[in-house]
Amino acid sequence: MNALAGFEALTADKLIDDEGNYQWRVARAPSGLPKPEDFRWGATDIPEPAPGEVLLKTLYLGLAPVMRMYMQGGGAAGEAALHPGDVIHGRGVAQIIKSRHADWHEGEIVQGQLGWQTYKVSAMTPAEKMFRCRNFGLPAMLSCKTLGMTGLSAHAGLFACGEPRAGDQMVLSGAAGGVGTIVSQLAANVAGCDVLGIAGGARKCATIRDLGCSAAIDYQADDVPALLAALRPDGIDLYFDNVGGDILSAVLERLTMRARIVLCGSISEYAADAPYALTNYTRLRRTDSRMQGFFVYNHLDRWGAVMDELASYIHDGRLRPVQDIEQGFGRMPLALAKLYSGGNIGTKLCSVRGEPGEWR
Amino acid sequence: MNALAGFEALTADKLIDDEGNYQWRVARAPSGLPKPEDFRWGATDIPEPAPGEVLLKTLYLGLAPVMRMYMQGGGAAGEAALHPGDVIHGRGVAQIIKSRHADWHEGEIVQGQLGWQTYKVSAMTPAEKMFRCRNFGLPAMLSCKTLGMTGLSAHAGLFACGEPRAGDQMVLSGAAGGVGTIVSQLAANVAGCDVLGIAGGARKCATIRDLGCSAAIDYQADDVPALLAALRPDGIDLYFDNVGGDILSAVLERLTMRARIVLCGSISEYAADAPYALTNYTRLRRTDSRMQGFFVYNHLDRWGAVMDELASYIHDGRLRPVQDIEQGFGRMPLALAKLYSGGNIGTKLCSVRGEPGEWR
Repeated sequence: MNALAGFEALTADKLIDDEGNYQWRVARAPSGLPKPEDFRWGATDIPEPAPGEVLLKTLYLGLAPVMRMYMQGGGAAGEAALHPGDVIHGRGVAQIIKSRHADWHEGEIVQGQLGWQTYKVSAMTPAEKMFRCRNFGLPAMLSCKTLGMTGLSAHAGLFACGEPRAGDQMVLSGAAGGVGTIVSQLAANVAGCDVLGIAGGARKCATIRDLGCSAAIDYQADDVPALLAALRPDGIDLYFDNVGGDILSAVLERLTMRARIVLCGSISEYAADAPYALTNYTRLRRTDSRMQGFFVYNHLDRWGAVMDELASYIHDGRLRPVQDIEQGFGRMPLALAKLYSGGNIGTKLCSVRGEPGEWR
Repeated sequence: MNALAGFEALTADKLIDDEGNYQWRVARAPSGLPKPEDFRWGATDIPEPAPGEVLLKTLYLGLAPVMRMYMQGGGAAGEAALHPGDVIHGRGVAQIIKSRHADWHEGEIVQGQLGWQTYKVSAMTPAEKMFRCRNFGLPAMLSCKTLGMTGLSAHAGLFACGEPRAGDQMVLSGAAGGVGTIVSQLAANVAGCDVLGIAGGARKCATIRDLGCSAAIDYQADDVPALLAALRPDGIDLYFDNVGGDILSAVLERLTMRARIVLCGSISEYAADAPYALTNYTRLRRTDSRMQGFFVYNHLDRWGAVMDELASYIHDGRLRPVQDIEQGFGRMPLALAKLYSGGNIGTKLCSVRGEPGEWR
């Protein structure tokens, strides 16, 4: 955990108050995984909204593997490329504390593109993808990930792309991750699939068994192809892919007729400097199978209906949010580094003001 | 054309008559593309059908790139692996000249797995995938490919997997091949797509422009990615892939929203000794696109309806069969070699008895 020690040192003294707008910016484009030297801390005055704008006070910020790609400047996942000196991209939950905008009102809780900063002036443009957080009688913090883009990703990927059927012999990689912990529960408890989860380490494998997975493979310790054969003797009907790489390749060797592969993310790709070379994609042919990609921003038109549905599953117990919460905005770089260290379970977010964050 | 000279020499004196059952067998498993030394000529007595069997007299045999894989002994495309000494697999059209089978009658014209031989005794097993050739008022020869597995491949791949929409900006590789010359016409004349065909050489490119393609790319002479960008400025809605490899990779860079890629064949893969490494399959994600494989034997349940439909298109002029006919069974190895030499246009078949083969 040497890598994390540097982030502990970087973030230990980075405290915030309500007198300024604190920010984390790109110091330089990361080469490989982000290092402490890639982040720059600073503060500005709290900005004033112009006509048509609001002032947002950040409450929660989400962390996601794609943030490394933002920082590297390539542009990724529908966001603009960042350059050294730019505030790092990040979606989160905020309260409107001043409004000069006709449609958005003081006191409303919203979620959208805030950036790594404690305040933001915003014209609430379409590019920021701002949504009002609805009060489902649940903590506002949930709107950061589970009742936000992470939940929409899980729902769109599983239902719109994966077309799950009751009894499907399913495999889910990245099962302990932010999207994975939602997909496993929706697949098992809503769609009626039999979910074989793949995660790294005994602790994660134990956790995912509590989250809808009937069995688990520890890719760090187990022979993945051998266990796929043993645990899916009749083949794989549905594969939800959060990691890419060798596991995708192994799954392609075991497809049933008209199997479906959903390409959600490729954390193995984010962490590698060269893309994975897939040599057996032609295995899709023999079984009339398909590999379908999806991108969450293509599914925003169903936002309201999906949030209603996910909230109902939280209330009836079919979906248990799994949140890994970092306390305090100053620790954002450390929170991101933990995401790449493989240790976190569930959705990763930061309670910016270090409070538990119940709904007002 | 040195390679073909050896095949000309091998096949020049291989004549048949109705006194024996002439056969081409595997002499040895090809290493790379088949060579003349990989084939063995011979003859046996004409076999006698036992109860429950028929005697078939071969009229036409089809040629397909997959035959190299049969000969190499790996087993491929739903057929048993071949070993040295075995009669080479091949589907074709035959007449039942004796029957001791309750369901199949003397005089009927059938198509199915015959092997490279001039007679066959058959119990008409499911593995042989035998179908009666219907008399659509068209030459029986058409049942070898266009009104056979090649036509079913084209139809199933385009309609069942590709889900074409009128106005789709489509790309078709292998457009001058057996499947390609059918797909281009169905896509343009039935589905209403705008078809950009890819083929090798000016002669093939000229031909495919007469077969439904509004434009053509010569992959031997042109810069394929640059022309894809120029001719598909708004992106590619539908890609029917007959070749795999670099062209698939280039298409993945230019997908529209919810684009569809149909994986039919990979002649570039049959001809290479190592599978292609696809590094940009994740491009499917941004546009919610899919890559769908299919295998013709998974679509046999629709045989009758598809043959009716294809025959109707031949009659009304929307589908013009393009056949490249080798005359005489002795030339089968030469016919196969020509398939790999890149020179043939349309479906490749052999008129076993060297006749034009009109319907009786």
